[in-house]
Amino acid sequence: MAQGSLLMRESLGAVLRAERMRRGLTLRELSASARISLGYISELERGQKEASSELLAALCDALDVRLSEVLHEVSLDLATVEAATAPEAGGVVASAA
Amino acid sequence: MAQGSLLMRESLGAVLRAERMRRGLTLRELSASARISLGYISELERGQKEASSELLAALCDALDVRLSEVLHEVSLDLATVEAATAPEAGGVVASAA
Repeated sequence: MAQGSLLMRESLGAVLRAERMRRGLTLRELSASARISLGYISELERGQKEASSELLAALCDALDVRLSEVLHEVSLDLATVEAATAPEAGGVVASAA
Repeated sequence: MAQGSLLMRESLGAVLRAERMRRGLTLRELSASARISLGYISELERGQKEASSELLAALCDALDVRLSEVLHEVSLDLATVEAATAPEAGGVVASAA
């Protein structure tokens, strides 16, 4: 894997967590409304688990956010990291920590 | 699953397949350069398998496309379907099964 790269699940987890926080929901509340285990959501938010498409759709439903918006945020997030690390952008590869 | 919904893996598969075709690569060629089994890529393109973040990154590398671009395409794809099916004005959440 490329140095300084950001994995999709890491960005996705951060975005989902931000969406939950924005709504003032606890993990417990989201877990109850999405019918997804608290532990799973927690791991997902920390980028430690891949989200299946079905669970991702259920989570977005429970968060009342569109999956397209979530993925758009993820794409922007990844683009920022790519721009900072891709050799074609600046020539110098600055490794992000 | 909500009626008319498009799962992320289905959209992702279609986008990845389109990127491969655009480059005139066969599944065999992509499989060799990405070091991912042909069967796995094929299932992924047909939306039958979830892509792990690592394999997705490797595929994008082999396709010489940025993951952010792929996800942006996916988000546009999903937004089109959402706009056609979501009861956005009412705020009534159609329950997913």
